[in-house]
Amino acid sequence: MNISALQKERAKYQPKLPKSLVGAVKLVEGAKTQSVADQKDIEKLFPNTYGMPLITFEEGEVKKDRPAINVGVILSGGQAPGGHNVISGIFDGIKKINQESRLYGFLGGPGGLVDHKYVELTAEIIDEYRNTGGFDIIGSGRTKLEEEWQFDKGLEIANDLNLNALVIIGGDDSNTNACVLAEYYAAKDAGVQVIGCPKTIDGDLKNEMIETSFGFDTATKVYSELIGNIQRDANSAKKYWHFIKLMGRSASHIGLECALKTQPNITLISEEVADKKQTLEEIVEYMAGIVAKRAENGDNFGVALIPEGLIEFIPEMKVLISELNDMLAEGSETEKEFKMLKKSHRNEWVAGHLTDDSAKVFKSLPSGIATQLTLDRDPHGNVQVSLIETEKLLGEMVKTKLEKMKKAGEYVGKFGTQYHFFGYEGRCAAPSNFDADYCYSLGYTASVLISDGKTGYMSSVRNLTSPAEEWIAGGVPVTTMMNMEKRHGHMKPVIQKALVELEGAPYKYFVSKRGEWAFTTQFVYPGPIQYFGPSEVCDLTTETLKFEKA
Amino acid sequence: MNISALQKERAKYQPKLPKSLVGAVKLVEGAKTQSVADQKDIEKLFPNTYGMPLITFEEGEVKKDRPAINVGVILSGGQAPGGHNVISGIFDGIKKINQESRLYGFLGGPGGLVDHKYVELTAEIIDEYRNTGGFDIIGSGRTKLEEEWQFDKGLEIANDLNLNALVIIGGDDSNTNACVLAEYYAAKDAGVQVIGCPKTIDGDLKNEMIETSFGFDTATKVYSELIGNIQRDANSAKKYWHFIKLMGRSASHIGLECALKTQPNITLISEEVADKKQTLEEIVEYMAGIVAKRAENGDNFGVALIPEGLIEFIPEMKVLISELNDMLAEGSETEKEFKMLKKSHRNEWVAGHLTDDSAKVFKSLPSGIATQLTLDRDPHGNVQVSLIETEKLLGEMVKTKLEKMKKAGEYVGKFGTQYHFFGYEGRCAAPSNFDADYCYSLGYTASVLISDGKTGYMSSVRNLTSPAEEWIAGGVPVTTMMNMEKRHGHMKPVIQKALVELEGAPYKYFVSKRGEWAFTTQFVYPGPIQYFGPSEVCDLTTETLKFEKA
Repeated sequence: MNISALQKERAKYQPKLPKSLVGAVKLVEGAKTQSVADQKDIEKLFPNTYGMPLITFEEGEVKKDRPAINVGVILSGGQAPGGHNVISGIFDGIKKINQESRLYGFLGGPGGLVDHKYVELTAEIIDEYRNTGGFDIIGSGRTKLEEEWQFDKGLEIANDLNLNALVIIGGDDSNTNACVLAEYYAAKDAGVQVIGCPKTIDGDLKNEMIETSFGFDTATKVYSELIGNIQRDANSAKKYWHFIKLMGRSASHIGLECALKTQPNITLISEEVADKKQTLEEIVEYMAGIVAKRAENGDNFGVALIPEGLIEFIPEMKVLISELNDMLAEGSETEKEFKMLKKSHRNEWVAGHLTDDSAKVFKSLPSGIATQLTLDRDPHGNVQVSLIETEKLLGEMVKTKLEKMKKAGEYVGKFGTQYHFFGYEGRCAAPSNFDADYCYSLGYTASVLISDGKTGYMSSVRNLTSPAEEWIAGGVPVTTMMNMEKRHGHMKPVIQKALVELEGAPYKYFVSKRGEWAFTTQFVYPGPIQYFGPSEVCDLTTETLKFEKA
Repeated sequence: MNISALQKERAKYQPKLPKSLVGAVKLVEGAKTQSVADQKDIEKLFPNTYGMPLITFEEGEVKKDRPAINVGVILSGGQAPGGHNVISGIFDGIKKINQESRLYGFLGGPGGLVDHKYVELTAEIIDEYRNTGGFDIIGSGRTKLEEEWQFDKGLEIANDLNLNALVIIGGDDSNTNACVLAEYYAAKDAGVQVIGCPKTIDGDLKNEMIETSFGFDTATKVYSELIGNIQRDANSAKKYWHFIKLMGRSASHIGLECALKTQPNITLISEEVADKKQTLEEIVEYMAGIVAKRAENGDNFGVALIPEGLIEFIPEMKVLISELNDMLAEGSETEKEFKMLKKSHRNEWVAGHLTDDSAKVFKSLPSGIATQLTLDRDPHGNVQVSLIETEKLLGEMVKTKLEKMKKAGEYVGKFGTQYHFFGYEGRCAAPSNFDADYCYSLGYTASVLISDGKTGYMSSVRNLTSPAEEWIAGGVPVTTMMNMEKRHGHMKPVIQKALVELEGAPYKYFVSKRGEWAFTTQFVYPGPIQYFGPSEVCDLTTETLKFEKA
């Protein structure tokens, strides 16, 4: 295999561990826990895994002759930097417990468990993937583990391989399912434990015991490198507004973190838009206002960050999309009528069949986007929100707004745009020192929890703004993070998604600064992730954590 | 100013210089030179700056009491990483000659010289910009210095500021103009020297004496970082083909270099397309063939690199675009007729008014692209080739082709696409060690050439695959790079653009490997630029240079 010079050097990196994990580990049980809400419902649904104590690791005395443990590991959902280090952490952890321990990787995500597709992860394989990005060691997948028949198929292979435990590395949904699986196996007394690990670049799986999900640090560093480079270009050429969309369908943590790192002129935060019930027109006015005011200073350039999920947080757009979904639902009478129309007549017809408010919004959209909303639908006839090029939608609407302002004498300037969308660029980057250390610690923690017979826990490594040796490792029952939410018409126990807190310190700092950043140019250029330099450059984690823990 | 942790540490970096520049410098004159072609014409046009000798620097004896020199510096055209280091190299160079020397920066590109907009670059300003990316220290611009009145306006301010010389940092066009300016001032005996520095991320300003233009190394490293990350994502998720367009309107050096670094499945090289007179259909067939063959192995994913300038290298597209330009020229009868038509009838009408061959090509285009070709025109009515989303054009056509192949039983697989365009992401990155050193050396070299009274020279630093101390610095007369070419209907002396050599070692290696890279997955993941690690990781320059110098 031809590997890069950096990869060769980086393979040698030994991830840092919390002090408590370096030698022998003692488990300290804390108080019994309860779920964050809907305690009675959750307790009823998880009789075997509810109320378990928090676990904290401390330095302990070496235990001898611990039995070998066999573990199966699953990567679930979208890639996040550091997944390979979680796996190498598990591997080193179980091998330290007993050299006869074995690690199996299920291939292509949770589907691999159900379909009995796996590979044994030997030292040779693990060594090839230490400190690398991607999930390619065993692949990932989006199959949801939700049905009992899947659990039973999983148990078959677990028994065949003599597995003590499964480790599921995933986001909020995957960890919810991991918990259901843990409960199911516990109720059956099946002898297979389930441990979760908190993964997602979106940063929306976090709480008191899970300070951040892994991958968020690295991904936002890559995006911030690129945003910084583009800002420097904008400030050198002084002729473009760069509208940059950032991956992440629900929360705006990525945009907020990148804003704190790079200080762009505009950053939209979906949670704020929803909270203030902003209209698309209001958002466009806000952006055009900043463009116009910068133009007064002769600055016909700038950078705007836009969260991918914005559209669904704008109340009137949510209503419009839901009306369109009903109107164009597959097989409906209205859909048939729509399809009979000439293409050039369709948008007018659609507007005529919406409520007045939605018709107004629909007509305000650039025609290309309006057409896209009626054409690009999924097999159920639903608008595919992820295909909407929100950055171009806003760019075109800001342009139209500025033209009106120009006629009214409220704007003198030039408005040229460049569009970018960053997502795939960062999901598989090689992990930063922080994510390399954090992930390795999460994996190592999982091995200790398993060795101690725990199930229904998530690996927890806290105190993350301190040096790694001072991190606090342990386990937190997944049920503590749960509440009941409506999903597809039914109430279900799920892990609460952590949206951007409008009362939280990171957001409040951003709000206190954004006016300044908008009108003057205070760009910061973070540059690329460094692996070998001074600790101030290489080991720091996110601004979000810094503010949250301050 | 709020600067990033990396920027703070990176400011301390002392760029490496060739041995000959560290102490006192001796200039050694080589043989007289001639232009690369059209010698008589060039000699006639440049009587004062033609035939000058090559200059090589060697270690010399310290000269005392050298007079102060005043220099004006101009950044011309698109940004490239390292521009600030050229300027700090000039600054340190002239200050070493005499502490009373002064450096002025003309603002916003060549236009600053004509409009007399400048700033004195003091040590305090220079120190803020050492080893940083961007051209924001004085800004850049695209004004062309071509007219005598501009030269005369420039001379006025040069005399006002008592300048000994101008240093013009630019690409082939800007250096051509620098040479014309040098000749003009020499003919007038104006007492102002002109020195050029070879800049462009495109890598198309190079020859025997200019082994590479600055910025190419850093920009291709940034793009390769991103391509590598995307490849790792493709190989983890195994569900998308990523079509990545890379900036650069003429040569495909960027695509070739990135391919050598990352080993993607498909890389299109514009020069090959032109040489083989490939049709759009042939290119699409080539791409679809690779997609289909990978699908046979179950690999429904991959990465394809596409040079931004491709369209203009496809002979039939060039003809089509030229016919469209004539047909829709502003004010023409055909344009009037076109404008009267209903939008839905236009493409059919256009096809009817093209030659048969062009009509066939036009009809083969996805309708959105066809429409774009007739609508997005510049003020002269010309098709704006830069607006064509070549990556989407190819993605859609490959998809259509695969659907046909599927019906014919020649393809079984899924084809999902993600599109990317990288350009602005890399033009203002902080320079790699190579570019930081190379640029600083180019600037330092310029100061020595100026101090020795030279004009019409370009800074030349060679032997670049060796450690910096072994680099060979000196000067090369710009006229050596010139030939006569038709520009806007007239023969003009211009620096020959260096396209990808189809007989050159980098391209030949690529061709010998691309089949393997296409069908098996041999992705390489270069990772981000490192500034502090082992020399193998931090100091190496491009694969292109490695192969060219091997």
